[in-house]
Amino acid sequence: MKKEKILITGGSGFVGTNLIAKLSSEKYDIFSLDTADPKKIIDKINYINMDIRSREINNLINKINPDIIVHLAAQASVSISSKNPQLDNDINLNGSLNLFLSSITSKLKKFIFFSTGGAIYGEKIGKKFNEDDLPKPLSPYGISKLNFENYLNYFSSQGISNSEITILRPSNIYGPWQNPYGEAGVVSIFGNKMLRNENISIFGTGNEYRDYIFVDDVIDFIFQVLDLKITGTYNLSSGISTKTIEIYNNISKILDYESTPFFDDKREGDIFGIELDNSKSKSIGWDTKIDLSKGLSSTINFLKTHE
Amino acid sequence: MKKEKILITGGSGFVGTNLIAKLSSEKYDIFSLDTADPKKIIDKINYINMDIRSREINNLINKINPDIIVHLAAQASVSISSKNPQLDNDINLNGSLNLFLSSITSKLKKFIFFSTGGAIYGEKIGKKFNEDDLPKPLSPYGISKLNFENYLNYFSSQGISNSEITILRPSNIYGPWQNPYGEAGVVSIFGNKMLRNENISIFGTGNEYRDYIFVDDVIDFIFQVLDLKITGTYNLSSGISTKTIEIYNNISKILDYESTPFFDDKREGDIFGIELDNSKSKSIGWDTKIDLSKGLSSTINFLKTHE
Repeated sequence: MKKEKILITGGSGFVGTNLIAKLSSEKYDIFSLDTADPKKIIDKINYINMDIRSREINNLINKINPDIIVHLAAQASVSISSKNPQLDNDINLNGSLNLFLSSITSKLKKFIFFSTGGAIYGEKIGKKFNEDDLPKPLSPYGISKLNFENYLNYFSSQGISNSEITILRPSNIYGPWQNPYGEAGVVSIFGNKMLRNENISIFGTGNEYRDYIFVDDVIDFIFQVLDLKITGTYNLSSGISTKTIEIYNNISKILDYESTPFFDDKREGDIFGIELDNSKSKSIGWDTKIDLSKGLSSTINFLKTHE
Repeated sequence: MKKEKILITGGSGFVGTNLIAKLSSEKYDIFSLDTADPKKIIDKINYINMDIRSREINNLINKINPDIIVHLAAQASVSISSKNPQLDNDINLNGSLNLFLSSITSKLKKFIFFSTGGAIYGEKIGKKFNEDDLPKPLSPYGISKLNFENYLNYFSSQGISNSEITILRPSNIYGPWQNPYGEAGVVSIFGNKMLRNENISIFGTGNEYRDYIFVDDVIDFIFQVLDLKITGTYNLSSGISTKTIEIYNNISKILDYESTPFFDDKREGDIFGIELDNSKSKSIGWDTKIDLSKGLSSTINFLKTHE
């Protein structure tokens, strides 16, 4: 059987690294596109250093002629988006449009877009948002993701693109390879600091809550989309909300860390809480397999062995 | 009393020309920004030739320091947007963001954005769309307008901009100064062709319907927004739907034109019908004053005297 060509944008990022590590190179010709170097080099992967905003994207797509694109590349920081909405728009909307339109006349069969579940709906305490709720993003990051979704829905519903388009709206993903020095990814940040016995700041009261999902469960969902015909928009979440202070306490226990956290001002664009309804994603036969306790242990083990 | 400074982008366009002609230069210092020359030069107006995407916009805004911006400049063609979504996005979203962000730290008091009522909601026969309906644009043009609305709603709701932000969603505007050689503006196109005794093509069956509003009624609404504190999103329409063939027949009568139309394929992105609920706009004390019959006569008189 002929291998399918899969292009992963943002292949050097957190989700991209996990995805590429699990993708079979027997089944796929794998192309990883990023402006950053890969976190770990894997044989048989074709690494391409290119910005999704580049004019060269069109030539590249024509050359590779991918069957599948998983579009993960993004300006992923809510706070950078608040400080520089134009940069955020330029990467997340203009860059995404550049990528998608370059593939529109190709033989592309699937286009999988990582949008955001955490930053697209806005905020309503006690509400579990589902895919039919009206998005009311509270940051330029959420807006740029929504704005590109608007294009994808148009290209799909108007039959302008022949490829199957899937929009994923993940909640807070955590797991191995998440940058512990970034602004997001509280599990890796806390874990890394506790391992170094450093003090920890929580932005807010600690009662802020998020829906945490382990990265392997996210990759499982992508595999379903790769294997079946699954189009439309899907929340990708555990359906369980956890307070920041619980994450703190759980990792403290794993690592016998005893300091108490500092509490700092909440950051611009950060919301208090978000819960996502994952019943649509479950309806395609997918479910999470890794609960928080397992996921935290696995992430901490990774951090221990990767400096 | 000190004059207020008003900057009108797209000042050389159809609505801009009508607005500037009616604005009092006793009350306002008027700045008209466009890449095209004005349709008629008026004394005391400051004309600026600049693209809203230009890096110079920021300097310009700092120099003028306007109290009010009426943002009309746009790539306004649905069919161009279908052929070139990136160009449409670049002008209507990137350009608008460039303009708005340049004013965000200024003393700007009002920002009035001309979005679209005709191309933002999608299509549902028999439904009158109101401002709370979920937009489902069916063209890149409608998407780029919606996408900029998303930013304005964020800047406004999050208190990032101090200015009063008003989003207008006009239906099909017609009247003097509309380009009779454009792709839109069926009243001017039909009128002009009938005056020249040319044959006329209708794209579709003639039963397609639109909500036509005379340009003076639109200007009246802008004047309300200038005089009062009116923020949020407003449909701007007559609330009455009229079939294309009725427009054709009405103008035929005015001009004693006797040929029958040709019927051609509908164009990409064109919808069959759209009706807008204008009750929110009426709730601020505004109403249309010019009915279709008066508005058509007035437009035809204009066409007769302007070549």
